[in-house]
Amino acid sequence: MTSETTQTRVIFPGDLNNHETLFGGKALMWMDEVAYITVLRYLNQNAVTIAVNKLNYSNPVKAGDIIEISGKVTQTGNVKITVHVEIHKEIVTTGERVKAIDADFIFAPIDEKHKPVRVAVFKKAEQ
Amino acid sequence: MTSETTQTRVIFPGDLNNHETLFGGKALMWMDEVAYITVLRYLNQNAVTIAVNKLNYSNPVKAGDIIEISGKVTQTGNVKITVHVEIHKEIVTTGERVKAIDADFIFAPIDEKHKPVRVAVFKKAEQ
Amino acid sequence: MTSETTQTRVIFPGDLNNHETLFGGKALMWMDEVAYITVLRYLNQNAVTIAVNKLNYSNPVKAGDIIEISGKVTQTGNVKITVHVEIHKEIVTTGERVKAIDADFIFAPIDEKHKPVRVAVFKKAEQ
Amino acid sequence: MTSETTQTRVIFPGDLNNHETLFGGKALMWMDEVAYITVLRYLNQNAVTIAVNKLNYSNPVKAGDIIEISGKVTQTGNVKITVHVEIHKEIVTTGERVKAIDADFIFAPIDEKHKPVRVAVFKKAEQ
Amino acid sequence: MTSETTQTRVIFPGDLNNHETLFGGKALMWMDEVAYITVLRYLNQNAVTIAVNKLNYSNPVKAGDIIEISGKVTQTGNVKITVHVEIHKEIVTTGERVKAIDADFIFAPIDEKHKPVRVAVFKKAEQ
Amino acid sequence: MTSETTQTRVIFPGDLNNHETLFGGKALMWMDEVAYITVLRYLNQNAVTIAVNKLNYSNPVKAGDIIEISGKVTQTGNVKITVHVEIHKEIVTTGERVKAIDADFIFAPIDEKHKPVRVAVFKKAEQ
Repeated sequence: MTSETTQTRVIFPGDLNNHETLFGGKALMWMDEVAYITVLRYLNQNAVTIAVNKLNYSNPVKAGDIIEISGKVTQTGNVKITVHVEIHKEIVTTGERVKAIDADFIFAPIDEKHKPVRVAVFKKAEQ
Repeated sequence: MTSETTQTRVIFPGDLNNHETLFGGKALMWMDEVAYITVLRYLNQNAVTIAVNKLNYSNPVKAGDIIEISGKVTQTGNVKITVHVEIHKEIVTTGERVKAIDADFIFAPIDEKHKPVRVAVFKKAEQ
Repeated sequence: MTSETTQTRVIFPGDLNNHETLFGGKALMWMDEVAYITVLRYLNQNAVTIAVNKLNYSNPVKAGDIIEISGKVTQTGNVKITVHVEIHKEIVTTGERVKAIDADFIFAPIDEKHKPVRVAVFKKAEQ
Repeated sequence: MTSETTQTRVIFPGDLNNHETLFGGKALMWMDEVAYITVLRYLNQNAVTIAVNKLNYSNPVKAGDIIEISGKVTQTGNVKITVHVEIHKEIVTTGERVKAIDADFIFAPIDEKHKPVRVAVFKKAEQ
Repeated sequence: MTSETTQTRVIFPGDLNNHETLFGGKALMWMDEVAYITVLRYLNQNAVTIAVNKLNYSNPVKAGDIIEISGKVTQTGNVKITVHVEIHKEIVTTGERVKAIDADFIFAPIDEKHKPVRVAVFKKAEQ
Repeated sequence: MTSETTQTRVIFPGDLNNHETLFGGKALMWMDEVAYITVLRYLNQNAVTIAVNKLNYSNPVKAGDIIEISGKVTQTGNVKITVHVEIHKEIVTTGERVKAIDADFIFAPIDEKHKPVRVAVFKKAEQ
């Protein structure tokens, strides 16, 4: 098992803001969920998001688009792990696939009392 | 691009029925979404679900489980396409990965008036 | 008490797919909920959906339509029960009422360990 | 067609407040939806809720209960219509059925500019 | 701490009814949540909504509007508390702010067995 | 009108992760909504979140807690605006109020083509 994580979705009208593009808060929540699963698959520790960097919007996402949200660990420090999350959209009628949104999610491992601890216990498959 | 489709999710308490396992209706909706994306990526035609067969529950899904829902075209007929959808669960603390639910989703292509038509227009990447 | 079950709803924009008709996955989830209640009212056993057959779309459902989802046991076997579920829509302005979607939901009774068992324990009112 | 309206649901953990009983705001929203459909089926005018009276809780609703929400026009005035809405719960294991919540929803017909008008245009079936 | 309570929201397409204005049931649910928090901050007793009076719609709420829902205790009796709830909308492009919906929510304190009791235990800050 | 924005909520079981505390993705989505409203009230330009910094969890949020999410502009640059968002929780039974989560949300103004532009057009009330 690899920690790389993919979540594919169809965008429906209920996901849109009043500019008829994907509501940013929903994109953030979905990206955070994918980043969180990526970290859970990588570590044997619980972890929390401590920052989101370089949130970049290349192309608007609209109703009817298929999106693929993918997460991948790109950096491991002593107390932090960076997961790069990308949303690609596929336009159903043409099959065209372009990057829509991407960002770095920074996680810190925590212990049972929710206090930050050192990055320590990797999953076997990642060693 | 392949038509195979993956949707990874974490199960939260709000997804459970009153037996504290994943609500069947939600599983069905998510599996149908993944099957639908698989078909959209395979065909250049719109399509609708006409049956769900061999819906099989091997292992209960609980809060905190990571699930991976995956769809794959397994049969193509003149007027029907079969997508096999599997849900695997990963238990976060142990990394164990087992099949939880699987089923065959049968789709029929439709035209703009929502009438059934023959399977006809494949996406380039699948030819 | 009869096991026949009705769920009436108004369709809102948040229920639509990007063709501006009712999202199929939502219809499936609602029909499954109604079928499940129908079975729970009929049996004194828990049960799970094992198949959905003859899913048929006669008329598109749109925002503002009132829909009535109704379930009724149509067959009882040794290990399976069939619930026929119909969605009728009523167009508010004209009062017109037409069948929109219907399907057969097949359920299997299960024991406490989630293993299939024989259909056995009917509710009093149904005997 | 009669204007009487029924909506049957299963209660899931996601519907509960932190006392583990049905969240009042959700009950109110569902009852308002049923009352609204009842009025739409009775009148050929659009209408809005202007009051909710005698909201009475006889029995707590819990996860796993089946509830039946039913609405019925009980009074028609010059500018107001009263719909009595009752929620009955059925305990699945025993089949017991008791009143849980009931209330009067008062509606006023409105014109296209959202201004109150007289009750005027009844549906044929109700005359 | 005062018991006055504010909840600011942006309206998205998923909140609308099929007239493209805010769905009344959602407005009612949000107003009830704000009224409930107002009461919880005022009393040291649990309480339930027993009526909603003078529900008045001055201006339609549309997608993209910012709304501010505010609750304030306006009357305290022996067995009832009245919370006046107002929704103001702000039109983002012009900054204009107008009353959209308001109503009185009547609450009754209840004991642990969910039985009505007298209004008795005020929070310190309100004395 | 000031740009400071408050959103008060009750936490329900459906908002929790499987550790029975508030789901981080939901907190992030709510904080982003409050930050976004704060910016919309401050500027006469549309804007998007480009980063979230110093996301700090001081105290876990549980079912039944009242939370107050508040946003305030703390820095204005040429192309960026910083909104500091804090979540305070109030424990209903004791009235205790403590900081639970806080973070800086960084926004960039965009034009109609969704391209970044300079911070330019302040709302009157903020000048």
